[in-house]
Amino acid sequence: MKPFVIGLDLGGTNSVFGIVDARGEIKATTAIKTGGFDSAEQYVEASVKALIPIIEEVGGIDTIKAMGIGAPNGNYYRGSIEYAPNLPWAHDKVVPLAEMFSKALGIPVALTNDANAAAIGEMTYGVARGMKNFIMLTLGTGVGSGVVVDGKLVYGSNGFAGELGHVIMRRENGRLCGCERHGCLEAYCSATGVARTAREMLATTTQPSLLRDLDPEKITSLDVSIAAEKGDQLAKDIYQFTGNMLGEACADFAVFSAPEAFIFFGGMTKAGDLIMQPIKDSYLKHALPLYHNAHFLISALDGSSAAVLGASAVGWEI
Amino acid sequence: MKPFVIGLDLGGTNSVFGIVDARGEIKATTAIKTGGFDSAEQYVEASVKALIPIIEEVGGIDTIKAMGIGAPNGNYYRGSIEYAPNLPWAHDKVVPLAEMFSKALGIPVALTNDANAAAIGEMTYGVARGMKNFIMLTLGTGVGSGVVVDGKLVYGSNGFAGELGHVIMRRENGRLCGCERHGCLEAYCSATGVARTAREMLATTTQPSLLRDLDPEKITSLDVSIAAEKGDQLAKDIYQFTGNMLGEACADFAVFSAPEAFIFFGGMTKAGDLIMQPIKDSYLKHALPLYHNAHFLISALDGSSAAVLGASAVGWEI
Repeated sequence: MKPFVIGLDLGGTNSVFGIVDARGEIKATTAIKTGGFDSAEQYVEASVKALIPIIEEVGGIDTIKAMGIGAPNGNYYRGSIEYAPNLPWAHDKVVPLAEMFSKALGIPVALTNDANAAAIGEMTYGVARGMKNFIMLTLGTGVGSGVVVDGKLVYGSNGFAGELGHVIMRRENGRLCGCERHGCLEAYCSATGVARTAREMLATTTQPSLLRDLDPEKITSLDVSIAAEKGDQLAKDIYQFTGNMLGEACADFAVFSAPEAFIFFGGMTKAGDLIMQPIKDSYLKHALPLYHNAHFLISALDGSSAAVLGASAVGWEI
Repeated sequence: MKPFVIGLDLGGTNSVFGIVDARGEIKATTAIKTGGFDSAEQYVEASVKALIPIIEEVGGIDTIKAMGIGAPNGNYYRGSIEYAPNLPWAHDKVVPLAEMFSKALGIPVALTNDANAAAIGEMTYGVARGMKNFIMLTLGTGVGSGVVVDGKLVYGSNGFAGELGHVIMRRENGRLCGCERHGCLEAYCSATGVARTAREMLATTTQPSLLRDLDPEKITSLDVSIAAEKGDQLAKDIYQFTGNMLGEACADFAVFSAPEAFIFFGGMTKAGDLIMQPIKDSYLKHALPLYHNAHFLISALDGSSAAVLGASAVGWEI
């Protein structure tokens, strides 16, 4: 049996590669910039060039079972990246990236979106080991999700299932979302949504806060996190608001797949109970009693390597 | 191969049994009243007594592969009816009905809730044949649902997945639902919800309508349907309101499982385009473009026998 898979965390800025064993240990790693290429062909060429030394390091291509890719706008069924707004070489087309890497490396390659990769990673190496039904929510620039039913990721009829960041949470006067609709969960509970909540609360209250020392237009969710850790009440209120909505959303998600757990991933989870407690309280307040047993967990995968591990786990599934 | 299964549509008032072949033809049928028994044991005894003649009619118990039951508050994993408010012999306890029938008849028995049975029936005999990903919505006294992902019904961690009637559609001033929460889809789009919409519209507008000839407290969704067929504008407005909300809800459901189709079942679908067109229009207005390809279909199973067929289909799945 071949002992390794390659994981590629393809982000808007960086592309991080890792060679990973079955226990989730990263044996070798490398990275390139994602942008700066005129075409997907050039991107794959540069990737392979970066990969060759680390493949040699672990014993050559014959030790590699497969490659998994986690990418924005990734489609599992087609193995493609489709109209990804932040990728210069894929913003206006369908790029069959899995096939391109497979030809270049001579191994099977599977691709899925980053949040789905995180869910598979959690199931393979993390807190969801042994779980058959759970929902992964990634709180980053956007709100991503991966839904696992009966031990398998839900891809749906076209490969685009599991976009839970785009359920509508506020139907009246909802915030404008990046998807051009109003009131999406993502518009409130992503890192950018949290920063926007901060600006709104600063503008509409006179509550004293450490955040008032900052330029409101430049406040980030990290600033909110730092203020909350120092005990700032307004920052805690922001987490209360965000957690309350996430709990409401999870109460709706529960009726769909009755998950054993909701697993949260992303910088915001570093706030620990400041965010998790409001989520749990709100969930119990809003969910049907049938679903009260669900657990609320934080991803166990190390932040910096979680995305590579998630991507590599997609490779084990081939 | 044994050519038949028994289907039991266990309703609050009647229990209808059918013996069904693999093509969905009902070969023999019988029924008893569901209530009027002090215990589940008595109910099963009376059921078996009613079944014996029709089992003989098709050639005896050796021709029967299995039995499927569709029941309110049915739990597939445990084969039980759990705290069903409308069943005197199961309102305050967990009744292991599948096991009880299995012992009495000597064949395998599976049980699920009525909406899940409808979804499996549609997949086995109806418009969802060959579909791998779809969502069934049953518009009756309540709003039930069955979610099919990758060809399998979603039961979730505890057997209670697929209660889509209880997503919250109105978070501010939402109607009280039977589940004691406010703003559920079911409080608006069930038959009782439609009757309530009629009463509200009659009370808050001066629009002329055939419905004004009726006692407002006694208006049913059937009255609305009859008025709409006669061209009554207020009745059409009620369907517009109901369809609009169903379309909004389906737009949220789509992000979960990216279904190929939404399939509607229940008396309300008899209104045809009067209800289906507003649903489709609203869906296209509210859903992310990724999901615009979903079809909106009406169940192909005959209303009176659909529930028995659905239940029998659960038997084929054993």
